[in-house]
Amino acid sequence: MSYGQQTQRVMQAVRSKISSRALEPGEKLPSIRGFASTMNVSPSTVVEAYDRLAAEGIIFARKGSGFYVSPKTQPFTIAEIGPLLDREIDPFWVSRQSLDTGVDMLKPGCGWMPADWMPNASLRKAIRNLSKADDHLLSDYASTRGAANLRRLQARQFAAEGIEVDPNQILLTGSATQSIDLVCRLLLRPGDKVLVSDPCYFNFQAILKAHQAEIVSIPCTRTGVNFDEFEQAIIEHKPRFYISNSSLHNPTGVTLSPQSAHKILTIASRHDLILVEDDVFAEFLPETTPRLTALGGFDRVIRLGSFSKTLSASVRCGYIAARPDWVEALIDLQVATSFGGPSPIATELIHSCLSDGSYRKHMEALRRRLAKTRREVSANLAELGIQTWLMPEGGFYLWCSLPEGIDSADLARAALQENMVLAPGDVFSPTQSMGQFMRFNVSQMGNPITYEILADVMCNL
Amino acid sequence: MSYGQQTQRVMQAVRSKISSRALEPGEKLPSIRGFASTMNVSPSTVVEAYDRLAAEGIIFARKGSGFYVSPKTQPFTIAEIGPLLDREIDPFWVSRQSLDTGVDMLKPGCGWMPADWMPNASLRKAIRNLSKADDHLLSDYASTRGAANLRRLQARQFAAEGIEVDPNQILLTGSATQSIDLVCRLLLRPGDKVLVSDPCYFNFQAILKAHQAEIVSIPCTRTGVNFDEFEQAIIEHKPRFYISNSSLHNPTGVTLSPQSAHKILTIASRHDLILVEDDVFAEFLPETTPRLTALGGFDRVIRLGSFSKTLSASVRCGYIAARPDWVEALIDLQVATSFGGPSPIATELIHSCLSDGSYRKHMEALRRRLAKTRREVSANLAELGIQTWLMPEGGFYLWCSLPEGIDSADLARAALQENMVLAPGDVFSPTQSMGQFMRFNVSQMGNPITYEILADVMCNL
Repeated sequence: MSYGQQTQRVMQAVRSKISSRALEPGEKLPSIRGFASTMNVSPSTVVEAYDRLAAEGIIFARKGSGFYVSPKTQPFTIAEIGPLLDREIDPFWVSRQSLDTGVDMLKPGCGWMPADWMPNASLRKAIRNLSKADDHLLSDYASTRGAANLRRLQARQFAAEGIEVDPNQILLTGSATQSIDLVCRLLLRPGDKVLVSDPCYFNFQAILKAHQAEIVSIPCTRTGVNFDEFEQAIIEHKPRFYISNSSLHNPTGVTLSPQSAHKILTIASRHDLILVEDDVFAEFLPETTPRLTALGGFDRVIRLGSFSKTLSASVRCGYIAARPDWVEALIDLQVATSFGGPSPIATELIHSCLSDGSYRKHMEALRRRLAKTRREVSANLAELGIQTWLMPEGGFYLWCSLPEGIDSADLARAALQENMVLAPGDVFSPTQSMGQFMRFNVSQMGNPITYEILADVMCNL
Repeated sequence: MSYGQQTQRVMQAVRSKISSRALEPGEKLPSIRGFASTMNVSPSTVVEAYDRLAAEGIIFARKGSGFYVSPKTQPFTIAEIGPLLDREIDPFWVSRQSLDTGVDMLKPGCGWMPADWMPNASLRKAIRNLSKADDHLLSDYASTRGAANLRRLQARQFAAEGIEVDPNQILLTGSATQSIDLVCRLLLRPGDKVLVSDPCYFNFQAILKAHQAEIVSIPCTRTGVNFDEFEQAIIEHKPRFYISNSSLHNPTGVTLSPQSAHKILTIASRHDLILVEDDVFAEFLPETTPRLTALGGFDRVIRLGSFSKTLSASVRCGYIAARPDWVEALIDLQVATSFGGPSPIATELIHSCLSDGSYRKHMEALRRRLAKTRREVSANLAELGIQTWLMPEGGFYLWCSLPEGIDSADLARAALQENMVLAPGDVFSPTQSMGQFMRFNVSQMGNPITYEILADVMCNL
């Protein structure tokens, strides 16, 4: 066999190892000397083969360290996007656990109410009416902004808050999460910084990672944020925007006072910062309090939300309200990435439920039920030494501190063995400093066994 | 007024101009001398004011050219992502025109069939059944992969094509467009290159721009691509993937022969290229032909599609079938950006229609109807001197050349004045070289006035 044939043989052997995945992308190739001996050729033949494969881009040389399989055909995974936390307590922990476990699982950690707390009678009625809708509604794409009737209804609801908005300033989307995603597409480029509170909704972290943004955080206080820290972070990091829940902050339950909202707007204005107001929980408040958009209009505030928490998470629909020129750009982005607005079927069902007189009564009853349940659960947890950090004015979350010495991630891992999904503090914490906290969903804690399991598991930690 | 007060006054005047948008972001500020005269201050006061505003980041200096308004609070628009074409014929032209115009508009340019060609009876039946579904289906989030019953049904359909796929290798999404978007998120970073055919589905260009990818194209031939050009483009540009429709290519109607599919796979394999097979039109083919996934499996091929063209575009649902490890990464990305799979209501409706015995009959009748309509429309267009480039084996598109000297963008603009949306060739062309072509949707051309308007408009060009 000629020298050239020997080189080809070595090259082919490497290619086979790669295609059979005996050698994984990024993995180091055998040493020159070792592989020469294996293949029964001279080291210089292996050097020649490796060099040629490197020229082809199949492998690459790392100075002083040898040759490695190129990552070329490998996709980037979200793990490469940023420093991924321990998978067990990363931001996906709660979402994937709670989305994929069966209905028989106990889910004090999940982010929605039990199915039988939702206005299903109203939804069923809407579905029956839908079966008689015209062919266009059932089979055509949505218009680029989404159904006009729902946008008009929302504009009236904004008006009740004192916010003047043209229905064309509202863009319907597939969900609040997709709303955030579109806003990120509009505002972010890889490496940009975004300001959040610590703790914050865990999916803010996931979505910002997906956009390769750098997360900057300031501590969440019982009134929102410390204004000096807020301003200092803006000056120091020049974030592209600040995203938070002004009402019933997830996970802490903090609602901004009008004074706090005004102060945040003033500081943002001074430093020309965009504010993204994720409003998904606002409807759980007994009374509407003026929030960022209500005080500042749409000059620098983007309001977004959905109907998943109060109406149905199965009917996917969210919205963005923003400056007209930004809405135009967001429409292009949504057409490019989803082809049109959300399902006309979905928006019709939501419009139908929201226009139904029973919906307001359902929400009133639900607020009373949740207020009672928050008090009861808080008391039950207190008996286990789990203290409510702040009693929220609405919603279904309690942010609680655990007894001294109990780590919430340890507790969540142990609880999972007992078929219970919990939401440990650190999944909400960009700085990983919330190990003593746990978020509880009071609507998911009706089964008394929940407390027995919690007590048992804490005892055995 | 002190010097400091004068400086403040000038600064305030600039701020007002910016906030009232008298000065747009990126716009040049008035010259020092000119503004000093306007404000009745010394030039050095204006210099001081501009310098302070620059220190605040509100404006910035460009060497030797003066001061400009900072783009800081401005979002990036898709226009900045890449060189945007003339808005009238950019890739959004057709989508936004056809999505937002009324039902009374003539739409030979749109990408879907008339509502009364769709299986609405089957869908209405599915909706009536849905009103009796259990509370969980109506109100809960989807599991992360989307409904298991629909994925199992799809796996059986793949099996009929000879493709072995585990239902867990299938990820349900909001639409085929969202499937492409997730694949881009997985595989692309800004500046990466992607290979497409010229012409190609216009939204490939829009979505790739949204990901800041660079588009590389090779001419589409009547059999798919020229293999030498295909390989040469891969060698020269090292694209991250090639995306195309193997069946009934949009807009040309080309369907890959098994030999062509094999050849493309072989070349891709040689250069370790990922292939993305957008399969939205495959069901319109009278017979299944082996496509990329059927021949190559999921090693380097990603299959995606939706139910929008055959069943309903209002019920938003798409899918991705891919390697198990890629599916895991795609799930994370979809959770981060949409929170879970597509609407359980949507997937239930689709599963219900697909399992309904009437669906197969509907599709058979539809294929016959489309075959007849393609022939008729092609003959009608020929009378106007509009020649069908290739008679496709299925579907509702005809890719046609216009009479000598008629530019399709001019024709589309003129037709819009007559309430007719057309799809001019260049919206499909990354190289802007398809000005003589037009894509017609035969299912949208039942009204004879369509041809009268076309004839009139061509006459008057």
